Amino acid sequence: MTSLLPPHSTRAAHPSRVPGGSAGEPTLENWQDAPHNRWAFGHVAEFVPTAPIAHRLSEESARPVLGLGRLAALPRLVERLEQSYTDALVVVRDGTIAAEYYRDGVDPDGVHLLMSVSKSICGLTIGTLVDDGLLDPELRVDHYISELAGSAYGDATVQQVLDMTVDVDYDEDYRNPASEVQAQDRVAGWRPRLPEDPPDTYAFLTALRGGGRHGERFRYCSAGTDVLAWIVENITGLRYPDAVSRRLWSKLGCEHDAQITVDARGFGFANGGISCTARDLTRVGRLMLDDGVIEGRRVVSAEWVRRTIQGGNPEAASGTIFQRVHAGGSYSNQWWITGSSRGDYYAVGIHGQFIWVDPRTRTVVVKLSSWPEPVTEEWNRLHARLFRDICDAIGS
Amino acid sequence: MTSLLPPHSTRAAHPSRVPGGSAGEPTLENWQDAPHNRWAFGHVAEFVPTAPIAHRLSEESARPVLGLGRLAALPRLVERLEQSYTDALVVVRDGTIAAEYYRDGVDPDGVHLLMSVSKSICGLTIGTLVDDGLLDPELRVDHYISELAGSAYGDATVQQVLDMTVDVDYDEDYRNPASEVQAQDRVAGWRPRLPEDPPDTYAFLTALRGGGRHGERFRYCSAGTDVLAWIVENITGLRYPDAVSRRLWSKLGCEHDAQITVDARGFGFANGGISCTARDLTRVGRLMLDDGVIEGRRVVSAEWVRRTIQGGNPEAASGTIFQRVHAGGSYSNQWWITGSSRGDYYAVGIHGQFIWVDPRTRTVVVKLSSWPEPVTEEWNRLHARLFRDICDAIGS
Repeated sequence: MTSLLPPHSTRAAHPSRVPGGSAGEPTLENWQDAPHNRWAFGHVAEFVPTAPIAHRLSEESARPVLGLGRLAALPRLVERLEQSYTDALVVVRDGTIAAEYYRDGVDPDGVHLLMSVSKSICGLTIGTLVDDGLLDPELRVDHYISELAGSAYGDATVQQVLDMTVDVDYDEDYRNPASEVQAQDRVAGWRPRLPEDPPDTYAFLTALRGGGRHGERFRYCSAGTDVLAWIVENITGLRYPDAVSRRLWSKLGCEHDAQITVDARGFGFANGGISCTARDLTRVGRLMLDDGVIEGRRVVSAEWVRRTIQGGNPEAASGTIFQRVHAGGSYSNQWWITGSSRGDYYAVGIHGQFIWVDPRTRTVVVKLSSWPEPVTEEWNRLHARLFRDICDAIGS
Repeated sequence: MTSLLPPHSTRAAHPSRVPGGSAGEPTLENWQDAPHNRWAFGHVAEFVPTAPIAHRLSEESARPVLGLGRLAALPRLVERLEQSYTDALVVVRDGTIAAEYYRDGVDPDGVHLLMSVSKSICGLTIGTLVDDGLLDPELRVDHYISELAGSAYGDATVQQVLDMTVDVDYDEDYRNPASEVQAQDRVAGWRPRLPEDPPDTYAFLTALRGGGRHGERFRYCSAGTDVLAWIVENITGLRYPDAVSRRLWSKLGCEHDAQITVDARGFGFANGGISCTARDLTRVGRLMLDDGVIEGRRVVSAEWVRRTIQGGNPEAASGTIFQRVHAGGSYSNQWWITGSSRGDYYAVGIHGQFIWVDPRTRTVVVKLSSWPEPVTEEWNRLHARLFRDICDAIGS
């Protein structure tokens, strides 16, 4: 399958921001100078934080919200939504919005950060490459990214990265300033930089080290998704945001552009940096629910979806907080598979972002939240219960 | 007029990003933490640079472009546009698009940086406050911003700031790293920060000093517009982007949100940070052309437009590069008045951004460019000729 592929390991390292331009250019140092300004003046938000100047006032443009519909019968639902810091909730059954809720001040057309739900979007993008024979997940990462040879990821297979069974020294403690996850935040522009930080995500990933015992234990590690995004870039020759648009987002029938945060080199923060509307995000769940088809259009193969939902090896995740909530659960192709007899599965991001898919009732629930804590066992337990209650009420 | 106003000088200094929140919060340091994450997760682009993930591919969504229409008869027009680094050109006559041109790869629905055309948008926003009796331009700046007492701006009148006759020590040399204009760029997030830079634009403005001889000489100084934006905030209690939306942008019939870059405190870069589409920008010119009315809606008073177009004191600008191109020209309420018998006037930004208004032919020309140089006498001369040729061709 791979013999037809271009020799990735000798390909120029990174796609350029500017069609035909040099990799990594322009930068914050030179975007105002010729010739970089030709492209940069149309893409200032890639260099400098921006705020909208709305062309319609929110009170004039706010779209009608369906409301809770038959979910209104669920005891204490609004209280449960409020107490779980819900910003937006959209419930879709059989492809139609059945209920939705937005807290005061949240616009149905406004985007919200997905955190690690972004990972599941990357997993689907990878799936489209596998479908097209452009990527063999059993090959090693350094086959696709020569710069990662010798790093924690170089001798892991792409499948191991997808399932997060790579043996990597990476502290995912969101509240420890000395952790790798906070260092990666700084490199991504999410926190103020420190002088010793690597210049960009590529350099950060290349510097990660590990023990080489891949495929044995599930180790949740955000950096893996950025490795996948780098593979997407090398295979498609496109920047990651453009590849996601072309292979996935533009095929879902979404109403709005998504957006993704970019680092100093313009690399998208694939593991957690996507924002989109709650309504658009339900389409990702619908794609999974309907075996890779949405509104009659095949986006990813049924085989990819089936293999994802089937789950990985539950043994690999034994003893994790995840399994204390979902005994027999596993992480597969960047999705969480509960292992429950319901057959439900989900995407999740810290502080309460979810796509929950319940095949039995043909229901997709998207919940975007702003919990005070990044993640706790209790929050996860409470939300599994909430989503199953919602699916049962909608599906009954 | 001002006796009905709240006591600005004792008002809390800066409007909060978050309704009901603390001024200046959240920051890059804490946006991910509760309670800041409630607002920040819906506004990540205000903290971290972002790229779009398009929901429609450009080849599918590109709108039809009218083309050059009767302008096609102008000799060498396309060559002149190409040689002057045109990204977008839209010509409107009597409220209807008569011609447009986009260079390859530029999307009519894409935004483009306006640079100092942003100033003219600020001038109109100020005009709406004067119209409503909320601002007296003859009062001193420190009446509206107590923090600026003792700075270069404190004892200047608002009108002097509008007309840029404030005596301020400010080097507007865009290519000199030691200039104030580059320092302000760094504070605004447009260039990498230096350790000694003030934390935000408010602090930067407060630190500016001058000679106190206001009203005598025209001194082009970008910082003045940010002083005006700060006044807009103090009077409206809104953040500058929201005030511009509410008082101007949302009333023009625009098709798209504009966007503005924000500094570490969330303060909009009023003097140069707005991006919008070329088509939307023509509406600002139409508003001026039709004495403050657009599509039947009064946005700013005819009196404000009249006083703007009438111009300031040409003597104040004698000897400037501007007058070498436009003898008898002046700067008034953040617009450039040519002083020509044609009665034409314009907004301009470095690297070639223009709104050109020609009352005689009832034509508005918007040109967005990416010149290699920030500004030269020759570029200005060449563009005045180009716009007058275009207006004559359209109006004949």
